[in-house]
Amino acid sequence: MIFDVMTLFPEMIENACNFSILKRALENNIIKVNTINPRDFTLDKHKKVDDTPYGGGAGMVLMPQPYVDAYDSIDKCENSVTIMLSPQGEPFCDKTVNELAAFNQIIMLCGHYEGFDERIREVIKPREISIGDFVLTGGELPALCVIDAVSRKIEGTLGKIESADEDSFADGLLEYPQYTKPREFRGLHVPEVLLNGNHKEIAEFRQRCRLERTRQRRPDLYEIYINKSKG
Amino acid sequence: MIFDVMTLFPEMIENACNFSILKRALENNIIKVNTINPRDFTLDKHKKVDDTPYGGGAGMVLMPQPYVDAYDSIDKCENSVTIMLSPQGEPFCDKTVNELAAFNQIIMLCGHYEGFDERIREVIKPREISIGDFVLTGGELPALCVIDAVSRKIEGTLGKIESADEDSFADGLLEYPQYTKPREFRGLHVPEVLLNGNHKEIAEFRQRCRLERTRQRRPDLYEIYINKSKG
Repeated sequence: MIFDVMTLFPEMIENACNFSILKRALENNIIKVNTINPRDFTLDKHKKVDDTPYGGGAGMVLMPQPYVDAYDSIDKCENSVTIMLSPQGEPFCDKTVNELAAFNQIIMLCGHYEGFDERIREVIKPREISIGDFVLTGGELPALCVIDAVSRKIEGTLGKIESADEDSFADGLLEYPQYTKPREFRGLHVPEVLLNGNHKEIAEFRQRCRLERTRQRRPDLYEIYINKSKG
Repeated sequence: MIFDVMTLFPEMIENACNFSILKRALENNIIKVNTINPRDFTLDKHKKVDDTPYGGGAGMVLMPQPYVDAYDSIDKCENSVTIMLSPQGEPFCDKTVNELAAFNQIIMLCGHYEGFDERIREVIKPREISIGDFVLTGGELPALCVIDAVSRKIEGTLGKIESADEDSFADGLLEYPQYTKPREFRGLHVPEVLLNGNHKEIAEFRQRCRLERTRQRRPDLYEIYINKSKG
């Protein structure tokens, strides 16, 4: 999987990919992360990439020329998708992750401070994705979330020990509570059922916990799950 | 605002705060970001912080001792909140950002790979927050989203030019399209209304765009907005 990230802060992307599972996936050539800085493509003599908005208003707007020229410079493979990180996009979720993981190349446009000139959307026609209903300084953290979540679905990224846990959202329920050593910590004990070696009872206990936790914390997901079970 | 981030990858947090608006806020002492590594608190001679789950299953589970001892070591000020980044938490949104911005200190627990031993929740009793229904390798990217989104609400973080644009989610509608120079780009023109200097017409045009865009892209937000307008 190739990730091409268009960003004014390429180091932020490169640094953050240098840890843990992403680092290993890069070293093993399972993923590749390129950065492209639109500032390198501006034709403005002061290297400007933004300007004031037509019609007035606060903030600066990212100019179309540097972004579209930077985009045109990227080698695109056949099975490629372009996404724009923006609070106006479709909400990012596990289903989106699976859809994106089916491509060979994901090109990402990160804004910064300001919005994109609308014509960037009109020319590039990206799929717009939002990681949530909150405002961030730029698209870099959302792009890193996409890289992380998608990479985990690519064969070879996760080791054996990590991979089986990948189904957290697959059936739409939250995870059951986990316990490890010691058996007693500050007077709190591991539930007896987890120690008795009865796999059927353990599975039932965990499923009950998942249902109860989802019902309490995420009634929205619980309702979807129950309706799916009925149908 | 003080952010105390408990993480096995402190450099990942420190590097990512070194850009743009967060960098400036740190330099101006508007925010402070500390990292605490639970690995420094483990009593295990191999510096282990995780172990296999009781009851079986894939993945490793973060042990309570290093996390709770690390947490206990943090100086807590009076107006402090502790949050755990986890896919099982309440969905993070602009409302959460405003609530968190009212504290003086935000302590964050980042998991990695695996889940937390349930007793970490029981002892520390954090507010659990999820940035979305997808699986990431750790809580570091979500913690950075919290730092970024919350910092933007702290007075002095944003310059004059950036600040007025802060209301993106305040009224529950998506942003209107933005345009900047040049007036024509690859045959695409800035809408005439934005060039005529009629502020009333511009405001009406933008509001129409916001309503239409929200209706098309986020019918969930649109419905909430319309019901609020009626009520």
